[in-house]
Amino acid sequence: MSNIYKDVISNSGITINQNKDLYSFNLDTILLYNFAKVVKKGKIVDLCSGNGAIGLSLASKTKAHIYLVELQKELSHLAETSILDNDLTDQVTSINDGIKNVQRHLHHDSIDMIVCNPPYFTSKESTHIKNNPVLAIARHEIKTDLSEVIYSIKVLLKENSHAYIVYRPDRLSELFNVMSEQKIQPKRIKFVRSHNDDNANLVLVDAIKTVKTASLVVEPDLVMYNGDQLSSEAKKIIEGL
Amino acid sequence: MSNIYKDVISNSGITINQNKDLYSFNLDTILLYNFAKVVKKGKIVDLCSGNGAIGLSLASKTKAHIYLVELQKELSHLAETSILDNDLTDQVTSINDGIKNVQRHLHHDSIDMIVCNPPYFTSKESTHIKNNPVLAIARHEIKTDLSEVIYSIKVLLKENSHAYIVYRPDRLSELFNVMSEQKIQPKRIKFVRSHNDDNANLVLVDAIKTVKTASLVVEPDLVMYNGDQLSSEAKKIIEGL
Repeated sequence: MSNIYKDVISNSGITINQNKDLYSFNLDTILLYNFAKVVKKGKIVDLCSGNGAIGLSLASKTKAHIYLVELQKELSHLAETSILDNDLTDQVTSINDGIKNVQRHLHHDSIDMIVCNPPYFTSKESTHIKNNPVLAIARHEIKTDLSEVIYSIKVLLKENSHAYIVYRPDRLSELFNVMSEQKIQPKRIKFVRSHNDDNANLVLVDAIKTVKTASLVVEPDLVMYNGDQLSSEAKKIIEGL
Repeated sequence: MSNIYKDVISNSGITINQNKDLYSFNLDTILLYNFAKVVKKGKIVDLCSGNGAIGLSLASKTKAHIYLVELQKELSHLAETSILDNDLTDQVTSINDGIKNVQRHLHHDSIDMIVCNPPYFTSKESTHIKNNPVLAIARHEIKTDLSEVIYSIKVLLKENSHAYIVYRPDRLSELFNVMSEQKIQPKRIKFVRSHNDDNANLVLVDAIKTVKTASLVVEPDLVMYNGDQLSSEAKKIIEGL
């Protein structure tokens, strides 16, 4: 399998097996990993975990048990090789199943923290990746959708625990509406832009499972570039300094 | 009436009668005035218009007829003196009534554009302005609330017409949820911060009455200060350059 290569997020020390023919982790993954405030113990779920990049890397920050939930066999298998390579079989468990079946593997109201990089695009949105079904499923709402993702987060999380989600700003209103239906309240958001004067191209969301009314904090933006150069903040995140 | 003084928004040329004892227009008003994309003809409503500062100033940019809807008699009266002073009786009409009665004065589905600076604070939120009932009603949801405001916008607007709203970021999720219930879709938002590295303290929302799915643009922030100095962008808006 010559298309496999190893990569590391933000200097975490955890090596991630990637396969360019499938779906490699990208900037979204690194940003979400850095945005999340990691619980020190208990149970963490990486929902729609792909090759497990975020969940695996979190093992460098916590003693919590980490579950990687991924529908696609090829990606789950890749994550399993990374678990072995990093000697993390005691701390990280791969669950190769769809999120609609997640309660077959994990109890409701049992999870202390969730990270989730869900498919961003609706199944209707045009795609140039039809010849790559693994990537298509990772990016598009083909096998799951936003409502199902947020519902699963609601079911799994303990009361007052947090979920960290990376998403597209153009679907922010929809995200908030679906969250509200499930009593998941956004508490903190951060927009990511290429440059100061660009529209936002990503949004990072820290949400809490609570029946209380939320008070949302819109944090300073993360601006990736200063002219042609990575901004100092982006550099710190990417290099894990 | 020695507490009356005259002020101008952004070099519009329209003088606004203000009364410091009641409620004066402030930065929110100026920002909303500048954020709104003004229709050139038809009918505009300034909902919760206070002393009419935004609606009156818009007369400098459009030939549309402008309706100022304000519950509070003292503020409506002040707006009426400004209409006279600026010789705008043919273009601007003051409606001194609560927004729940707005259909007594204006037909549903008849308005081409709405600007609205609604009360930001719930009636429960603590206030230091209990000794100023006019200001309390302008700022707090005492006589109206978000649902009523958005409902009125839905009723008044023509299909595919825009409403421009200034609001608090900490209630953004609630705003989006209420909008969604009324088929008012946010199309474009801009956060306002004091400094680059501050949390947002205002959000400007451009929303459209439509049954279609929205695609939201999160525009570059408006950053008011660069150190101790007004930023060049803020200066342009405030000075109307």
